[in-house]
Amino acid sequence: HWLVGDKTSTRGGGVLAGGLALKSRSHTARRPQVDMERETPEAAPPPTFLRGEEASSGSSSARARFERLIRRVQAEVCAALEAVEEGSGGGGVVFREDAWTRPGGGGGISRVLQGGHVFEKAAVNVSVVYGVMPPDAYRAARPDAAAGVEKAGPVPFFAAGVSSVIHPNNPFAPTLHFNYRYFETEAPQDAPGAPRQWWFGGGTDLTPSYIIEEDIKHFHSVQKQACDKFDPTFYPRFKKWCDDYFHIKHRGERRGVGGIFFDDLNDHDQETLLDFATECAASVIPAYIPIIERRKDTPFTEDHRAWQQLRRGRYVEFNLVYDRGTTFGLKTGGRIESILVSLPLTARWEYDHDPRKKKYTNFLSLYCLNYKGAAIF
Amino acid sequence: HWLVGDKTSTRGGGVLAGGLALKSRSHTARRPQVDMERETPEAAPPPTFLRGEEASSGSSSARARFERLIRRVQAEVCAALEAVEEGSGGGGVVFREDAWTRPGGGGGISRVLQGGHVFEKAAVNVSVVYGVMPPDAYRAARPDAAAGVEKAGPVPFFAAGVSSVIHPNNPFAPTLHFNYRYFETEAPQDAPGAPRQWWFGGGTDLTPSYIIEEDIKHFHSVQKQACDKFDPTFYPRFKKWCDDYFHIKHRGERRGVGGIFFDDLNDHDQETLLDFATECAASVIPAYIPIIERRKDTPFTEDHRAWQQLRRGRYVEFNLVYDRGTTFGLKTGGRIESILVSLPLTARWEYDHDPRKKKYTNFLSLYCLNYKGAAIF
Repeated sequence: HWLVGDKTSTRGGGVLAGGLALKSRSHTARRPQVDMERETPEAAPPPTFLRGEEASSGSSSARARFERLIRRVQAEVCAALEAVEEGSGGGGVVFREDAWTRPGGGGGISRVLQGGHVFEKAAVNVSVVYGVMPPDAYRAARPDAAAGVEKAGPVPFFAAGVSSVIHPNNPFAPTLHFNYRYFETEAPQDAPGAPRQWWFGGGTDLTPSYIIEEDIKHFHSVQKQACDKFDPTFYPRFKKWCDDYFHIKHRGERRGVGGIFFDDLNDHDQETLLDFATECAASVIPAYIPIIERRKDTPFTEDHRAWQQLRRGRYVEFNLVYDRGTTFGLKTGGRIESILVSLPLTARWEYDHDPRKKKYTNFLSLYCLNYKGAAIF
Repeated sequence: HWLVGDKTSTRGGGVLAGGLALKSRSHTARRPQVDMERETPEAAPPPTFLRGEEASSGSSSARARFERLIRRVQAEVCAALEAVEEGSGGGGVVFREDAWTRPGGGGGISRVLQGGHVFEKAAVNVSVVYGVMPPDAYRAARPDAAAGVEKAGPVPFFAAGVSSVIHPNNPFAPTLHFNYRYFETEAPQDAPGAPRQWWFGGGTDLTPSYIIEEDIKHFHSVQKQACDKFDPTFYPRFKKWCDDYFHIKHRGERRGVGGIFFDDLNDHDQETLLDFATECAASVIPAYIPIIERRKDTPFTEDHRAWQQLRRGRYVEFNLVYDRGTTFGLKTGGRIESILVSLPLTARWEYDHDPRKKKYTNFLSLYCLNYKGAAIF
């Protein structure tokens, strides 16, 4: 069951759209017309969102293995965050779960914890999408194969991913974002002999309100370790990509202190890159939880809180104006609550706020960081 | 001194960009490259932002009269809001003023009141811009003149406007937005004989968190009175335009309860439309201040406040995702603090919030309104 037409039919709950939007950049400029099946809420998540033979529990296809990966990561990260809540007197503050499927295959699970003792708002979503993309996007992704498919029709695709944003309460505890996704196309509908394509995308990045060097060095060192197991070029490439991507252009500021970010990754064999994505996803907990444990109970003042709220405002600006997953999700009619769950619980905008005139401890390092780029770490 | 090139050089502090973006819609899709002169802060506003002969105090040109109009409206609205503060024990809470000019002519004045007894954040900005626009925008605006200018170069333009967003503290006191602007082009640079063109745009609209019919009827009746003095078709046309424009597509919601909105207006003589814009702007105070006086001291609970904060979040979503003035301003590098001063001081996003499950008094009327359109008023 493919949806066809000059449409990018993706309703990924905000999880996957980053990668899709990147591939089909030229199409999102003219707002895609979407005519997608609505999601059906499910009382409990099904064992798999895959269809056909791959839905069998023993499937070793890349799709099946990736779906198992993202669902395991979702479970592990949620358990780690709940354990932090439990250890901080927040027992009983747990993730709420919403699952949905679509008639043609695919679906998703949103897990959200709100109003915790440690976490103001934390979301970990997985999503699986079967859809079709315009052939231009296929040609752009595989110029080597483009010669044979000039007149090809829409391209069926598969996409799956895990996406998460975690906003803690304490102004000294940083916000975390991570997102890992896998993308596959069939041959275009009119060119059955053309090659399939696939790629991986994702990353993990940190957005503190205050610069605490120890925390940022720890965070980056875990990302570097994960990358260095695979390719010595990965960490410098993906760190720079991250700095470039999480850039609030109208402010001339970085969103945070970076991490890693990559997309369209298919320059190693599939097995290696699946292992790499697995390693990156497995690094989320060791990169983040030690920082949270150190900062969750740091005493703070109303001034610290106000500065955090202003930084939350910047997070909203980035996500609504630039984030490809969010903007693509809004345009294509995804599950809106899953897309916008990345927004903080609360945010603040003061006119012409100048941190140099206020008593925000340690503002200067962040101020400098923003204006000079995240290169110092 | 015209800035030339395939650039839309507008740095209007968010005041004018609505009209510009509408005219040059096809150009904003590919992000305009802007290479504008930076604004120079001024200790006090100059007597005029106009240049050449029109800068003389007695000029009766449309540009000069419109600049006088918007500066008078700015002064009157700010004085009315300060009087409300004064009468509510908020004496001393006054507007801060920031003025700037540009070397080639033009400039602006931002006036912002923050943290008042009655108003959380209120901004009233004026701006005057001299710039150039791509010729396509000129042709689109004047199809009758387009035949002569197929190969025309960039089109010098003039734009001036007043723009305001007022967010009160009390959850029962609605947010107000208004914006009136005037636009003129020269002949394209390569087609000196081609006609000039001009148009007016603007509107006034109300965004309450709670539906209080008395207030909304009063607000609309003042808009209708202003329109009916000029053309019986104005009110129904501009009311519908307003409902259509302030639409948060990804939510399937209206931003508020509407008002009037128009653009590209040049179907009456210039004198009549200048009078019409003057009348609309003069209606802001009688439309809004009586509502504020009635609601500013209404008792409210934390629940009411939380609902207001969620509605503030919707306001942020509309302004950052859809508002033409804001999105165009962000892309073209305007004075960022003037563009984003429309955002509320604070906002809130709860995952999957369902007002039917909460104790928010009177939520239902707004809920229905949002989902059925604003047609009931």
